Amino acid sequence: QIKLVGAIDIAPDKAGTDLATLLQQEEGADVVVSADSAAVLRQCRPHVVLHTTGSFLDRIETQMLDCLEAGAHVISSSEELSFPYDRHPAIARRLDEAARTHQAVILGTGVNPGYAMDALALFATGACVDVQRVRVDRVVDASFRREPLQRKIGAGMTLVDVEARKKTGSFGHIGLRESLLLVASGLGWTLDHVEESLDAVLAEESVRTQYVHVPAGSPAGIHQRAVGYCNGAEVLTLDLKMHVGAKESYDAVAVEGIPPINVLIRGGIFGDTATVAALVNAIPSVMAASPGLHTVNTLPLPCAFATT
Amino acid sequence: QIKLVGAIDIAPDKAGTDLATLLQQEEGADVVVSADSAAVLRQCRPHVVLHTTGSFLDRIETQMLDCLEAGAHVISSSEELSFPYDRHPAIARRLDEAARTHQAVILGTGVNPGYAMDALALFATGACVDVQRVRVDRVVDASFRREPLQRKIGAGMTLVDVEARKKTGSFGHIGLRESLLLVASGLGWTLDHVEESLDAVLAEESVRTQYVHVPAGSPAGIHQRAVGYCNGAEVLTLDLKMHVGAKESYDAVAVEGIPPINVLIRGGIFGDTATVAALVNAIPSVMAASPGLHTVNTLPLPCAFATT
Repeated sequence: QIKLVGAIDIAPDKAGTDLATLLQQEEGADVVVSADSAAVLRQCRPHVVLHTTGSFLDRIETQMLDCLEAGAHVISSSEELSFPYDRHPAIARRLDEAARTHQAVILGTGVNPGYAMDALALFATGACVDVQRVRVDRVVDASFRREPLQRKIGAGMTLVDVEARKKTGSFGHIGLRESLLLVASGLGWTLDHVEESLDAVLAEESVRTQYVHVPAGSPAGIHQRAVGYCNGAEVLTLDLKMHVGAKESYDAVAVEGIPPINVLIRGGIFGDTATVAALVNAIPSVMAASPGLHTVNTLPLPCAFATT
Repeated sequence: QIKLVGAIDIAPDKAGTDLATLLQQEEGADVVVSADSAAVLRQCRPHVVLHTTGSFLDRIETQMLDCLEAGAHVISSSEELSFPYDRHPAIARRLDEAARTHQAVILGTGVNPGYAMDALALFATGACVDVQRVRVDRVVDASFRREPLQRKIGAGMTLVDVEARKKTGSFGHIGLRESLLLVASGLGWTLDHVEESLDAVLAEESVRTQYVHVPAGSPAGIHQRAVGYCNGAEVLTLDLKMHVGAKESYDAVAVEGIPPINVLIRGGIFGDTATVAALVNAIPSVMAASPGLHTVNTLPLPCAFATT
């Protein structure tokens, strides 16, 4: 049983509005969105905060610390939080310490990172007595995804714009490196080095979605790869294609191991909904876990929670 | 790092033999198989016992209690232990109490139950905000499986023999009911009732394996189903076909939910190896878990352990 006790958003068109109105639902939880996070945390005393404000830990660390210091567990969709030990070891240490001090748990999860390209791959190896190599493919037809995602992957932009955006470091999918390192960590593998690439996928034919128009030959999305090497050999490959006009969405994991395991999720995992699911479904595990910073592979098997 | 410290087997052709000889390996762990379980537990003081002696809890409870009382964690392939609360609540309580008393963990796992038809299904729902119905299909071409499994499913027997064996209650796959109840429990679903069926699969054409010959029209294996109902509706279906001469092995999970999830493991999960994997891969999670009786969904995401 979940009870919604508060909602925080700094967007001027949301703060002050009743949640039911905002969600266009007839009945609500009698919760008014507030921009004052400290007041909400103090008044509502939530057991758990579902945190979905940003990707980059250096910009959201204080938000999370505030929640932990209020004694709330934090389940965040921050991609960098899914495996923060590599890019942000100091932040990871501070979050872990704050969580332990306040007997709280903090976890980064979502569909990707958090499920499709890391937890699923680790789960697939659970039936193997040995693993030589793991390859994960995720192909997302972004045509039916939300507008910010279509924009984030550059659909409808010019190639010049995409190249300029790539230089900012915040273009494309965030979290592929985190997924790779999460899988390596789960398998107990130490990688020599990691190679990453990010390229535009150009539309083979003209594509028009609810939000963007992509002429043939223009950027329709991204093709991103992260590859991990052990002793010079490619042992871990994560390959992500997100673009409008993709023929088919799917998720696939190929484990070269004993026995080999080949997982295919036909039609893929619809990310907009699955991200929400991953956060909500983590609630029981997070509430039962030992205090501190967790990753999806230190918590029980994810499964649906609060089904009707 | 795993160190093998002892081996117990009461079979006269194994007891007294060096493990390396038995496994036809050049180098061994300097372990001689012993039929004296008490002596092995006392002398070796294992942290973990991998227990693979039988399916039925009422016949193996004392073996497990002996291990727990020696302070060892127990990871067992007993199908009934994967979810013992329904068929054997009293045994489940005694095992849980013994485990807690001796600060040990006890877990039943394997490929099925333990992975293919329950943990995989639960994992698949982890990306769903709601779930209406779950269907799991496992098709196993038993032609290349070990001899006891081919015998267990009746391949090469007459239909009269199969019907007689069905009446013993120990014919066919054990654990389908446990898988069903494990999934229901993980989802928080209370089932009104459960229906089970077991039928022979008859060979469409003559099949000859290393161990058995099945003439066309004779029993080649089993088709087993367990169905769970909620408010009169079929909400959970587990369908297992294991027979020699199956065209294709596969594992599939179809989640009717938001979003829908369709998982296919092409080629299936080779059970003889995967069962060993499930037991070995549970070691780190079991050693870190809180004392008591666990099921696969109360432990962290399974993943490969001790890869090369």
